[in-house]
Amino acid sequence: MIHEPNNWGRFGPDDQRGTLNLLTPSVVLDALRSATTGEVLNLALPIRGATSSPAPGTVPHLPGRPLPQHFMSVDGGDYAAGARPIGPGLRVADDALLVSHHGTTTHMDALCHMWSGDELYNGHPAARVRSYGATRCGIEHAGGVVARGVLFDVPRHLGLGHLPAEHRVSAGELAAIATPRPGDVAVVRTGWPLVWERSREEYWSGQPGLSAEAGRWLAGHDVAAVACDNAAVGGLDGRGMSQEPVEDDLHLLLLHRHGIHLIEMVWLEELAARGRTDFVFVAAPLRIEGGTGSPLSPLAIL
Amino acid sequence: MIHEPNNWGRFGPDDQRGTLNLLTPSVVLDALRSATTGEVLNLALPIRGATSSPAPGTVPHLPGRPLPQHFMSVDGGDYAAGARPIGPGLRVADDALLVSHHGTTTHMDALCHMWSGDELYNGHPAARVRSYGATRCGIEHAGGVVARGVLFDVPRHLGLGHLPAEHRVSAGELAAIATPRPGDVAVVRTGWPLVWERSREEYWSGQPGLSAEAGRWLAGHDVAAVACDNAAVGGLDGRGMSQEPVEDDLHLLLLHRHGIHLIEMVWLEELAARGRTDFVFVAAPLRIEGGTGSPLSPLAIL
Amino acid sequence: MIHEPNNWGRFGPDDQRGTLNLLTPSVVLDALRSATTGEVLNLALPIRGATSSPAPGTVPHLPGRPLPQHFMSVDGGDYAAGARPIGPGLRVADDALLVSHHGTTTHMDALCHMWSGDELYNGHPAARVRSYGATRCGIEHAGGVVARGVLFDVPRHLGLGHLPAEHRVSAGELAAIATPRPGDVAVVRTGWPLVWERSREEYWSGQPGLSAEAGRWLAGHDVAAVACDNAAVGGLDGRGMSQEPVEDDLHLLLLHRHGIHLIEMVWLEELAARGRTDFVFVAAPLRIEGGTGSPLSPLAIL
Amino acid sequence: MIHEPNNWGRFGPDDQRGTLNLLTPSVVLDALRSATTGEVLNLALPIRGATSSPAPGTVPHLPGRPLPQHFMSVDGGDYAAGARPIGPGLRVADDALLVSHHGTTTHMDALCHMWSGDELYNGHPAARVRSYGATRCGIEHAGGVVARGVLFDVPRHLGLGHLPAEHRVSAGELAAIATPRPGDVAVVRTGWPLVWERSREEYWSGQPGLSAEAGRWLAGHDVAAVACDNAAVGGLDGRGMSQEPVEDDLHLLLLHRHGIHLIEMVWLEELAARGRTDFVFVAAPLRIEGGTGSPLSPLAIL
Repeated sequence: MIHEPNNWGRFGPDDQRGTLNLLTPSVVLDALRSATTGEVLNLALPIRGATSSPAPGTVPHLPGRPLPQHFMSVDGGDYAAGARPIGPGLRVADDALLVSHHGTTTHMDALCHMWSGDELYNGHPAARVRSYGATRCGIEHAGGVVARGVLFDVPRHLGLGHLPAEHRVSAGELAAIATPRPGDVAVVRTGWPLVWERSREEYWSGQPGLSAEAGRWLAGHDVAAVACDNAAVGGLDGRGMSQEPVEDDLHLLLLHRHGIHLIEMVWLEELAARGRTDFVFVAAPLRIEGGTGSPLSPLAIL
Repeated sequence: MIHEPNNWGRFGPDDQRGTLNLLTPSVVLDALRSATTGEVLNLALPIRGATSSPAPGTVPHLPGRPLPQHFMSVDGGDYAAGARPIGPGLRVADDALLVSHHGTTTHMDALCHMWSGDELYNGHPAARVRSYGATRCGIEHAGGVVARGVLFDVPRHLGLGHLPAEHRVSAGELAAIATPRPGDVAVVRTGWPLVWERSREEYWSGQPGLSAEAGRWLAGHDVAAVACDNAAVGGLDGRGMSQEPVEDDLHLLLLHRHGIHLIEMVWLEELAARGRTDFVFVAAPLRIEGGTGSPLSPLAIL
Repeated sequence: MIHEPNNWGRFGPDDQRGTLNLLTPSVVLDALRSATTGEVLNLALPIRGATSSPAPGTVPHLPGRPLPQHFMSVDGGDYAAGARPIGPGLRVADDALLVSHHGTTTHMDALCHMWSGDELYNGHPAARVRSYGATRCGIEHAGGVVARGVLFDVPRHLGLGHLPAEHRVSAGELAAIATPRPGDVAVVRTGWPLVWERSREEYWSGQPGLSAEAGRWLAGHDVAAVACDNAAVGGLDGRGMSQEPVEDDLHLLLLHRHGIHLIEMVWLEELAARGRTDFVFVAAPLRIEGGTGSPLSPLAIL
Repeated sequence: MIHEPNNWGRFGPDDQRGTLNLLTPSVVLDALRSATTGEVLNLALPIRGATSSPAPGTVPHLPGRPLPQHFMSVDGGDYAAGARPIGPGLRVADDALLVSHHGTTTHMDALCHMWSGDELYNGHPAARVRSYGATRCGIEHAGGVVARGVLFDVPRHLGLGHLPAEHRVSAGELAAIATPRPGDVAVVRTGWPLVWERSREEYWSGQPGLSAEAGRWLAGHDVAAVACDNAAVGGLDGRGMSQEPVEDDLHLLLLHRHGIHLIEMVWLEELAARGRTDFVFVAAPLRIEGGTGSPLSPLAIL
């Protein structure tokens, strides 16, 4: 993660304690060496406007969440209908996107997204997370990730197409696949998004995810971030809730206590098909001031 | 740019002619060699919700555009007021972002953003750009950029703090600074965002930008994208319009005729202060299906 | 309906052909005489923000529609968390509402909402209904309704709690209950919203509604508007579609060919319990320029 | 105001203490007798989408507020461009509206909109006004207004086209025009919206409004609501703030302490031109659960 890269902070919150800067330059340079073929994959699900398609909602998401809405404010249809060009021969399309990213699309959680008691990560007061934005631990402080990505393809390791809903990945399963170095991004594949195409009811019946033990193992290896193709890094039950006791909740464990950013709902199928364990992982959240996270297009450079 | 990286296309438009794939693997690997120190800078302006701040609108933008709106749907204030945790000891903040990125924040234009006559880039019918999204040349096809970035710091070259509003950068001015290679991203600094802090009226009085000649020079060098810290790559007059004849309009020239993606309203001041001409430029737009562009957090890896 | 009541039209579309003015003063005065007890009922469903409640979606709506979203931009929680008052002792709550009213809440259709071929009601070109709003037949021209309301409580007439999904109300069933006068609002009760509380799946399995014959009967009696507690005035099948041939479609018949405004998803249970057939019906859509309709709070003055 | 008119409350907040029911039936019947000619006027400003017009923002509003945004999700342009009908011969236009009504359009304030200390009107805890809506004193409880309207045309009384920005209407000025009865709606004209057409800068330089003395006089006459054509019932200075001490603030005085709903930014020019002092005033806010107010189309029946 990189610290505030420009001076707009002077207009914003003046106290940036607790922001991260995991992007040690030598680690970045080292990470770039993981690229060997130069192929680049985008690990994001598409963002499909619930208002912009004859088939809304066919992209994996959690039930009950407000889906993205995408609106054109001017488009080719208007010109077909006789709208005047904006200049001689000049036509334009413009649009707007409304997105509540948690549970609806590929995204990165800010450190203010979850907490326990009255304190955010690193002791920041949770009372600073208000209706007009978080003045502590907002996503604008995350900056970006340039790191070695390490793919933990758990179903492949277990000889499965995807993990079953009730599977909780153990530390041993991760350790049998690879050992991350400090500053790496652990990319964990469950294969669960494949279930969506078969049945959204099955997709919503629960989700496989990391066990608390696996979360502790990753934190112990000092990873910079954890990216997963499920909705919550940890597993979910049929009501969309985690069932761990509070000390084992994956969000509290990784995000709240260790300040490890979480990247959720990534799409890993092409990456998994390549059979590569390490690669360059790059992701840069939108600099939404006070945001609880950001929709994201992570890239894997192979 | 990378072509559709995953198989969600099967749910979407089935005809992807005209998408780009400039990410030749060997060029990507070559670009990564431009990193020497490992420092990473985020080149995005902050996204400041017009509803979420006591000082809305203090970020550079074009007048009359709908500013981003950022809403919390649950936050720390609710818990301070007595809201129940969502689980034992578990508290959460969630939010929504509404953004019309053109003219309001750092963004990348899709190939469907501007055109002349009835055809988009590469002959796609403009009539396919409709209220429910563009089924041709939407931003979801852009995929991402991993390229060598070349900084053209024009005001520094001319010994100025920023270019004056009426300045149109010539091909000669660019050529005197650097020569891009095919597949590079040309990053052009005008310094105009510095004017915002002095006076938004002056910022709105016009904008410096590329001349058509400079645009042709960049296209002739086969750049993959052009990123600029002004609002429209080309210059603007006091009414926020370009004044070139249609054959010289920078959007039509670069985006429409050459399929060169444009990245606008980047923040280049820290990058300029480093004095580096080349670096790794990475940017990945949100995969908004049918979108005319995407808000963006470009990274420079030095 | 009342014609443009103020002079803002000078800033807007200059051609208002086709707007209605059914509010003949003598008819209005006559309608007011229908009030006998002075009790007032609000016939609107509540608007429940999908983001603002622990139980989103428990209000009747059609599946797949984007539900209303309600956001607070400042609220009591912020003050509980320590936000400063906006003035000495002065605290404020502010909010935003996003609503796509068709199929999600009580609303009135504009004359531009549905049509056949290339012409709206009264021959206006459908090509004037564009991404930036309808410059013909938008809801801002509807103005308001002050009329005698006539309740057709069809299930009560048939001795049922509510009509079954496949029931199509005949002209004879309406005629057996009451005969509307020119300028009246026909308020048709099916009782279908009661099904929602039992099962949303049953609610979505189809909907009872008017037959084309009944629609023609109402049009023949020159009613000013038709209000119904179902989603589409006409009936729906299990896919949420009407099944009539185009000449019998209720929207085309009433809205498109006769210019009779439709008011949908009204809540009639308290009104039905009063046992009154006629009353004063008042409704005023928001003056959304170029809107395809408006969310609405109709009042019945008994 | 009418109390919860239907049974949806069973899904919502169970404690509705403090809702109003000023709609005494006999008062309603009496109010209806004020109609003499049957002419109906809509007292709302148009809602003009900032994204939907070549001339956004030409409707009176306060500076810095997020303007309404209006989006079409399908429209006539799409069909002109070749979109398929939704059924044989059946075409449709659909849209969405985003509105933050305070300061941007004609609206009614809920009792939770402003307060002092930790209590809303009638002692309800302000901590119940949260990000997911107000569970006390939300606009869904207001129900609707059917009352005698009394027009206080202050500039006409003073022989002026409009009041000057610094004018604060005295109780004596009101008393010289008319004396409201209990349950009436006091409709106060300042004429200030006329200034908008001359100069938005002048409109924003301040606003005339009621003095605290006049507010007390109205409260003493037990009016049901106060409607005004300015933005805040009270006056505003050049920064858009009221300058009264907290005990004289018009919102606290009328809304917070007396539970008198405020209706702001009404358009009164046609009404004033009729020269009628009393008429029927009808207004029904959208039933937005937990809302701080609602956009509104008030009707005057003359």
